[in-house]
Amino acid sequence: MSVGLTVPDHVHAIDGVRLSVAAAGVRYRGRDDVALIEIVPEATVGAVFTQNKFCAAPVLVAQQHLQQSSPKYLIVNAGNANAGTGTSGIEAALQVCRCVAKEAGASIEQVLPFSTGVIGEALDTEKICTNVPALIQGLSADNWIAAAHAIMTTDTIAKACSSQFNLAGKKVSLTGIVKGSGMIRPNMATMLAFVATDLELDSEAIQEILAAATEQSFNSITVDGDTSTNDACVLMATGASGVKYSDLAAAEQQQYVNELTGLMQQLAQAIVRDGEGVSKFVSIRVRDTATPAQAKSVAFSVANSPLVKTALAASDPNWGRIMAAVGYAQDDALDMTNVSLSINDVLIWHQGALAPDYSESAGKAAMAPEEICIEISLGLGTVEKTVWTTDLTHEYVRINAEYRT
Amino acid sequence: MSVGLTVPDHVHAIDGVRLSVAAAGVRYRGRDDVALIEIVPEATVGAVFTQNKFCAAPVLVAQQHLQQSSPKYLIVNAGNANAGTGTSGIEAALQVCRCVAKEAGASIEQVLPFSTGVIGEALDTEKICTNVPALIQGLSADNWIAAAHAIMTTDTIAKACSSQFNLAGKKVSLTGIVKGSGMIRPNMATMLAFVATDLELDSEAIQEILAAATEQSFNSITVDGDTSTNDACVLMATGASGVKYSDLAAAEQQQYVNELTGLMQQLAQAIVRDGEGVSKFVSIRVRDTATPAQAKSVAFSVANSPLVKTALAASDPNWGRIMAAVGYAQDDALDMTNVSLSINDVLIWHQGALAPDYSESAGKAAMAPEEICIEISLGLGTVEKTVWTTDLTHEYVRINAEYRT
Repeated sequence: MSVGLTVPDHVHAIDGVRLSVAAAGVRYRGRDDVALIEIVPEATVGAVFTQNKFCAAPVLVAQQHLQQSSPKYLIVNAGNANAGTGTSGIEAALQVCRCVAKEAGASIEQVLPFSTGVIGEALDTEKICTNVPALIQGLSADNWIAAAHAIMTTDTIAKACSSQFNLAGKKVSLTGIVKGSGMIRPNMATMLAFVATDLELDSEAIQEILAAATEQSFNSITVDGDTSTNDACVLMATGASGVKYSDLAAAEQQQYVNELTGLMQQLAQAIVRDGEGVSKFVSIRVRDTATPAQAKSVAFSVANSPLVKTALAASDPNWGRIMAAVGYAQDDALDMTNVSLSINDVLIWHQGALAPDYSESAGKAAMAPEEICIEISLGLGTVEKTVWTTDLTHEYVRINAEYRT
Repeated sequence: MSVGLTVPDHVHAIDGVRLSVAAAGVRYRGRDDVALIEIVPEATVGAVFTQNKFCAAPVLVAQQHLQQSSPKYLIVNAGNANAGTGTSGIEAALQVCRCVAKEAGASIEQVLPFSTGVIGEALDTEKICTNVPALIQGLSADNWIAAAHAIMTTDTIAKACSSQFNLAGKKVSLTGIVKGSGMIRPNMATMLAFVATDLELDSEAIQEILAAATEQSFNSITVDGDTSTNDACVLMATGASGVKYSDLAAAEQQQYVNELTGLMQQLAQAIVRDGEGVSKFVSIRVRDTATPAQAKSVAFSVANSPLVKTALAASDPNWGRIMAAVGYAQDDALDMTNVSLSINDVLIWHQGALAPDYSESAGKAAMAPEEICIEISLGLGTVEKTVWTTDLTHEYVRINAEYRT
């Protein structure tokens, strides 16, 4: 059901990061559903979390532990979000951390918990804790793809990306995994994403770089406009490459930020390509705007319109719905006589009127592919922004009428 | 497909208002699709229109004519929205007004045009204009229900409401019709609504009262979060009852405003009850808020959540999705530990935890009926606000994948 995704044969191991997986039976049977990630003590960690005020117990615990200590272990379970579980949910998240800390000889604050799956059911910590000894024994630098499988819920495919490039004459690597398919409209973060690098980054720089890259990647996607309770994105920097970010020239720092942003965009797009019920992968590029906020507001207005999304599902070049969604974006500066609209490079609307050369058959041809680019020019400035989204299909309704989040 | 709606046997005629209908074949065959409404010259008229910047030609023309003159005729067609039609669309709307003005001996500015239906196709004015002589001949005070039928598009049932009450010892009447089923998230107005009264209202008061009642009715509903290009709501006051609003005591003025608001809420709810693919009629009542804006923001966050809407379609008491949608409402004052949630009077969530008495079976029973009331208390103040919405069904996706707006 995903669009244009395959599981990579190989991702780069990151020196200083080891992973392992287990089939704990939290909800699923016959598959891995817990992942443990170990980071060397000298690594720095940045993290961004959901802005949803009804955020889950593991989010609250992870945020607190990050303030108290430098993380050495991340423990992730799929199938139960441990959200809407009140104080007993907090206790459950702490209990999982306690098991890992005890077995690994770490402090509880050095363990960050993550959960994804059903909201509002008690997390059976026993199922996870009994697997902790085996998880610690199984740690290996080569388990990234296995971990990407273990954290899936309604995802139909494991999602991982990796890159390697030279900085200051040395090889630097970046590897990340992500899960997410529905309840996707990240705000400051996404579902679960774990990215590691062997660059050396101080703790101030890592948070700043991560926030900027998140804005351009996970905060630029939507499947259904629903911001999750459990979103989290973690960047781990081990420093094992021997390259220090603060020693790099400005151009090299920018190169690194671009590499990281690019990899996080690939991961974010992978969530959309595997969005619930997806049959189209849609880029909405809003150009010639006065501010990034203006571009984003118009892009999300179109991206979250059920009428635009059902038209996309039907491959119907229903440009009236797209223009209507542009028109109701809350923006006083919007002047529809300046707006242009293209779909997959076919110009449809130009300066207040239907483009003279536009034909319904050209529109139909443009809407046929699995990958659609909707390009909207506002004629108000020089800023641009792209967001990525899905169509809205019968399958989305079926999945979400049947699946208990 | 509608929930709890029937066509009324009878509505009160409004002295000073006459209506007629015709089958012009604008898009549909074998049914009326044009309505003409005539108002006596001494009547006052208030109107509110869509805030969508991509608004339709008839909206622009009607707004201009209202500034220039006092309306005597309203001409409405279904099947073609005359939206996204540029300057030739403006000319088409003016042409329809011109036909009516000529035949009726009025000025063009005394005619207001309204259109609803497909976006982006040229309006064939000839089909409408040839029917104008018969429309004028057919004018009658008893044609409200026929007019409600003539303005339907994807509506499955004609929608009309009427009330009669005493003010200052005299009988006063209110009658209204409305159309709308999809592309429904009115902003300052709704799809097409025409309401008439025999009260005497000056032109300042009529606009003020209409705006306030619209906020409590059409601006408090959503089907799919999509604000239409053609929304309009018109209130006509003929004065034929002999009762003058400005002569009424404050309590009587308030009584009238309550009657009008109540009737407009019934009309607004009728749109939701006939929402595209609807299987549930859902009231979302947000209580104990600090401001109306806060209540509205939380209510619409829940009302437009695809995950909440698909759970409603499945009669699944998935309270986690409702709480998640409350949590991502953009409101810094929100404190989830104060929030309570009930569905059809079953208390689910109370002060930061699942209610002790709540059971899944009680939740399932609460979600079973066709009419659902979701009640959310924020514990932040004394204001409350209710919005009305639908579920999201396979049928919504089918209708909007197949139907060209």
